[in-house]
Amino acid sequence: MIKDWLDQVRWDENGLVPAIAQEIETNDLLMVAWMNRDALKLTVKVGEVIYWSRSRKRLWHKGEESGHVQKVHDIRLDCDADVILLKVKQIEGIACHTGRYSCFFRKLEGSGLDVCWTIDEPVLKDPNRIYK
Amino acid sequence: MIKDWLDQVRWDENGLVPAIAQEIETNDLLMVAWMNRDALKLTVKVGEVIYWSRSRKRLWHKGEESGHVQKVHDIRLDCDADVILLKVKQIEGIACHTGRYSCFFRKLEGSGLDVCWTIDEPVLKDPNRIYK
Repeated sequence: MIKDWLDQVRWDENGLVPAIAQEIETNDLLMVAWMNRDALKLTVKVGEVIYWSRSRKRLWHKGEESGHVQKVHDIRLDCDADVILLKVKQIEGIACHTGRYSCFFRKLEGSGLDVCWTIDEPVLKDPNRIYK
Repeated sequence: MIKDWLDQVRWDENGLVPAIAQEIETNDLLMVAWMNRDALKLTVKVGEVIYWSRSRKRLWHKGEESGHVQKVHDIRLDCDADVILLKVKQIEGIACHTGRYSCFFRKLEGSGLDVCWTIDEPVLKDPNRIYK
């Protein structure tokens, strides 16, 4: 019997794998969160990204509160089968809870080891207006 | 006193964070591995990516055996400070130990829940020729 596609994913000891969301048009990285078996199955079924929230310990339909839904285009798996890559269209162009386009808004600046993290992406929408 | 840039990273209970390598020119995702404090510091110092190998329990200068070094262009940190994004130039255009460009060479194909993982990237170099 052929192994089920969900069984081919190497879920960790908590039944989770990291899932990376990448914007389909630009290939920009948007965010990283976690998925369990149900989250991945529902994501495929619904066509929108559903993560597992480790803090809230429940399924988290991305954008359920903010409207910043992620429409699924492609789903990929890495060679070790322990990381998922989601190619998505990010609705409203805001993935981050800080109101920014991407969660990777901090960049290491400086020279040698004399460096610091600087913010180089603007807030597009006030989080107070995103989460009422 | 300002917190050190290495202290600003939220290392997990094992002192690690996931690190994503992304090709600087195309924004394609290459691979995901892990870094500890020393790995990140050395990466910044040397200008080439050095991961922490969880299986071998030692620092792993990517390409040390294969020559498939990753030259660092940018280093970014996400909003939770627990994922590192490395923008790199992948030397020889092969990131994966299978001899492929990217580790994300498997794609979910099908319709509805009738899906399976298929391989859609060619092997560019026989792994037996990469690792002698």
